[in-house]
Amino acid sequence: MLGYHDLSLAVKFGVQFGLFGGSVASLGTQRHHEKYLTDIGTLELPGCYAMTEAAHGSNIRDIETLARYDKKSREFVINTPTGRARKVYIGNAVRHGRMATVFAQLQIDDARYGVHAFLVPIRDREGKLRPGIRIRDHGEKLGLGGVDNGSIWFDHVRIPRENLLNRFAYVSADGVYTTTIPGDAKRFFTMLSTLVGGRISIATAALSAVKSGLTIAVRYGARRRQFGPVGEPEVRILDYRSHQRRLMPPLATTFAIDFAVKHLVRTYLARRGMMSREVEVLAAGLKAYSSWHAVHTLQTCREACGGSGYMAVNRFASLRADTDVFTTFEGDNTVLMQLVAKALLSDFQEQFEEARFLGIVRHVTGKAARAIAELNPIVTRMTDESHLRDPEFQLGALRYRENQLLVSAASRLKKRVDKGMDAFAAMNDCQDHLLALAHAHVEREILEQFHDAIEDVPNAQLSSILKTLRDLFALSRIEADRGWFLEQGYIEGVKARKIRTLVNRLCHEVRLQALPLVDSFAIPDELLGAPIALSEFATERSSRG
Amino acid sequence: MLGYHDLSLAVKFGVQFGLFGGSVASLGTQRHHEKYLTDIGTLELPGCYAMTEAAHGSNIRDIETLARYDKKSREFVINTPTGRARKVYIGNAVRHGRMATVFAQLQIDDARYGVHAFLVPIRDREGKLRPGIRIRDHGEKLGLGGVDNGSIWFDHVRIPRENLLNRFAYVSADGVYTTTIPGDAKRFFTMLSTLVGGRISIATAALSAVKSGLTIAVRYGARRRQFGPVGEPEVRILDYRSHQRRLMPPLATTFAIDFAVKHLVRTYLARRGMMSREVEVLAAGLKAYSSWHAVHTLQTCREACGGSGYMAVNRFASLRADTDVFTTFEGDNTVLMQLVAKALLSDFQEQFEEARFLGIVRHVTGKAARAIAELNPIVTRMTDESHLRDPEFQLGALRYRENQLLVSAASRLKKRVDKGMDAFAAMNDCQDHLLALAHAHVEREILEQFHDAIEDVPNAQLSSILKTLRDLFALSRIEADRGWFLEQGYIEGVKARKIRTLVNRLCHEVRLQALPLVDSFAIPDELLGAPIALSEFATERSSRG
Repeated sequence: MLGYHDLSLAVKFGVQFGLFGGSVASLGTQRHHEKYLTDIGTLELPGCYAMTEAAHGSNIRDIETLARYDKKSREFVINTPTGRARKVYIGNAVRHGRMATVFAQLQIDDARYGVHAFLVPIRDREGKLRPGIRIRDHGEKLGLGGVDNGSIWFDHVRIPRENLLNRFAYVSADGVYTTTIPGDAKRFFTMLSTLVGGRISIATAALSAVKSGLTIAVRYGARRRQFGPVGEPEVRILDYRSHQRRLMPPLATTFAIDFAVKHLVRTYLARRGMMSREVEVLAAGLKAYSSWHAVHTLQTCREACGGSGYMAVNRFASLRADTDVFTTFEGDNTVLMQLVAKALLSDFQEQFEEARFLGIVRHVTGKAARAIAELNPIVTRMTDESHLRDPEFQLGALRYRENQLLVSAASRLKKRVDKGMDAFAAMNDCQDHLLALAHAHVEREILEQFHDAIEDVPNAQLSSILKTLRDLFALSRIEADRGWFLEQGYIEGVKARKIRTLVNRLCHEVRLQALPLVDSFAIPDELLGAPIALSEFATERSSRG
Repeated sequence: MLGYHDLSLAVKFGVQFGLFGGSVASLGTQRHHEKYLTDIGTLELPGCYAMTEAAHGSNIRDIETLARYDKKSREFVINTPTGRARKVYIGNAVRHGRMATVFAQLQIDDARYGVHAFLVPIRDREGKLRPGIRIRDHGEKLGLGGVDNGSIWFDHVRIPRENLLNRFAYVSADGVYTTTIPGDAKRFFTMLSTLVGGRISIATAALSAVKSGLTIAVRYGARRRQFGPVGEPEVRILDYRSHQRRLMPPLATTFAIDFAVKHLVRTYLARRGMMSREVEVLAAGLKAYSSWHAVHTLQTCREACGGSGYMAVNRFASLRADTDVFTTFEGDNTVLMQLVAKALLSDFQEQFEEARFLGIVRHVTGKAARAIAELNPIVTRMTDESHLRDPEFQLGALRYRENQLLVSAASRLKKRVDKGMDAFAAMNDCQDHLLALAHAHVEREILEQFHDAIEDVPNAQLSSILKTLRDLFALSRIEADRGWFLEQGYIEGVKARKIRTLVNRLCHEVRLQALPLVDSFAIPDELLGAPIALSEFATERSSRG
């Protein structure tokens, strides 16, 4: 909802309650909860989440800020050893933050214990910086002008021992380290789990921005006329096939992602205790998919509104600028998609851990190949509409793609490691493959959730239009990746052409419902703002009354 | 060059000298040239180009501003009949313009003669608006904050008869209309030809912005390290395959477009008299291709620089915002690509005008199909590197695609018209096909120009790296559209996979030359500006010394 209003506000909100408050809630213990959560919730204590450093954004495990335990004073000493280690892009830092959750390498005597989170007061009640804290404004950004991002340096800042967020790790007064999660890697990833909520929020906020953009572009396209047959009124631009091709698949995709994100939110809220791997992977994948969808769709919408779309008053300037950073913050999209792929691969490996890995790969690949060979005459050439619109075909295609990419990625990695390549180099050598796998996984998840959601819709008319949207989403995705499906022999040329023809028709069907569909986003005119989208202009709607 | 410095300046320059000055030079006659060109050239007379109206942007032929000839006073009366007819987005209107070339429907008595261009003074020497002129600032835009775009209304503004730009049409003192171009359509398109120069400038300015963006992103990627094998230094992000996949094909494409635009400029400057159709079509296609390339590549570059890319100081904010409108102004890209397709279709039709059209289509299609059938065993499965890197294969593939799309578009249009569809509806029904044809045409043109340019390079080392860039451009384009090539049976799955593998390798080869390649753009540090791109940071370069 905040995303419809102002994305800077949504981000400030996310930093305060999601990241800062969330880190205290999930990494702290009762004493932190009692002392801080109420004040954080009432905004009495505005805070920051200081993780990213100049030299380490994605690779958080190697951050260099140091938290040395001083046994004598029983304090931690937080220090920024070099310019590379300054905290950067920290929201709420420049103006409002009074405290920060600071991620730093814990050191006791000469021993290092990895990344831990500490509560560090950075300003007093009057808003004056506390001793040892230096903060610099990043200045103008591409967007999100309402967020006070800045760099923070810590010069041997002393904090009480109690300020370690100690849910998973504890340092006794005399400097003995204990932890409830013995594995360094597992503890580290548990510490990062606060980010999952943030990623879900980004996926949602990106969708809010897309819904605003599509509402503006669809209403404009349904009103704007340009060119036409000789002697007749000019044609509404939304009645041109190219315009439908540009806007209708993104509209269908927006509905599809929406159902998947709602499912993710339900799963996230229903979790017990630790963050499940399932939620973590889905949040990473949907954050990336939804934010890229936003960036591309908003660009398309802007262009689809021509000169009007370039005027700031029509909102695309801020919608684009404010969502742009969603693709790289709280986890760079490309890095997150690799996280998805790696999780799939390790699940796959675990599944067969007792068998000889390569043997399994050969077995599965062989089975898949046979399955396809059997499919060939029946399915690869089937082109009738009822087949193409059958969710079994659509889901089958996306499941097949994911499985094939998983099996072949595993097999390619194995081959490289067997040849003596180290794991890191092998991963890099297959990186494009891994990204394709992650992409295939996320699209399959989205389609499944969309499909399941439709099953629950009792109203036949509503169910019917949702099915059309699902068909358009699924088939336009298969069309976009038809190179892969053709390469695999999963479909033949004639089927690819039929899919294109059907996507054209589905674009037209969805266009006929496009105005009520964007109306269903229910964005109040006051928040939509754009003059070209306001109802007084939407003559087609009123005339249909 | 201006594009490297400031895109607002480049656009102001283009409005003054290209559009305003250009319209006086190409649509006016000696009396206009003598009276105005020197003052326009010295900026003594700043001006506007007032073509677009609120209700008519792409469809200029239906603009509604009226220029009625008043025989009594021997003046034209310029009038904005309704709000729909106000001129919009007019550069130089709000602040600097003293005169405007105004496009309006010429009316003498009750007869209309179509769109003509008139010189209308809008401000006096002191900068005060002249009587009957109303101008409103559009306010904030997505970008190009340095351009004073606004709306203009004319309230029965009287101008002398001599202010008709009368190279192609003349109105005598007593109101008799004569023209050197009898056909309305032909005269109209001749009047628009001023825009060709503008489109070439946009293609070039878009490239300047892309070169700046790529220089910044490549230098950053060659310096920035993140993650790495256990116990070793972190890896430069440009050494990741995914990063190379994101930046190297756009780098190759930038070189490719650059050669094509240079060829276009030479052809444009060498033209004699009237604008040739060839230049017009190529300018339209390259303007669209280059500006879309800029928008997509700059977005990729921004994301490839992570948080740093989001800071305004690193330039992507302004590079993206200022080039964004290139996709829709001086001809909307989608409309321009249709212009390209229609020109190809009518050339094709002319070529066979004496034969029965459908018969020819059948004949050509049949021939193409046979040619493919013959190719099949030899070429569709050939996967060795020397074949894939052979310009004959690359050019052959892009020529084949263009021809096939042309023939099939013609055949599909014909089929629809034969069934009784009107031409407008038939065009709309094939619009996605026409856009694919235009796209295929432009890419084939670009590859041919790139290929020809390399032939002229005497230096073997330079020629070799240019060939690598050409291979990457050609093969990454074929890979991107492999769905089409597979569908057609022009390549088989195994070949598509080999192309992908080779594109990966070429990305790596180009990455090894990436720093010298962006250095070859020779953008001075002062103009590049971005701290993350400045040479002091580019440690890899200095260490290679």
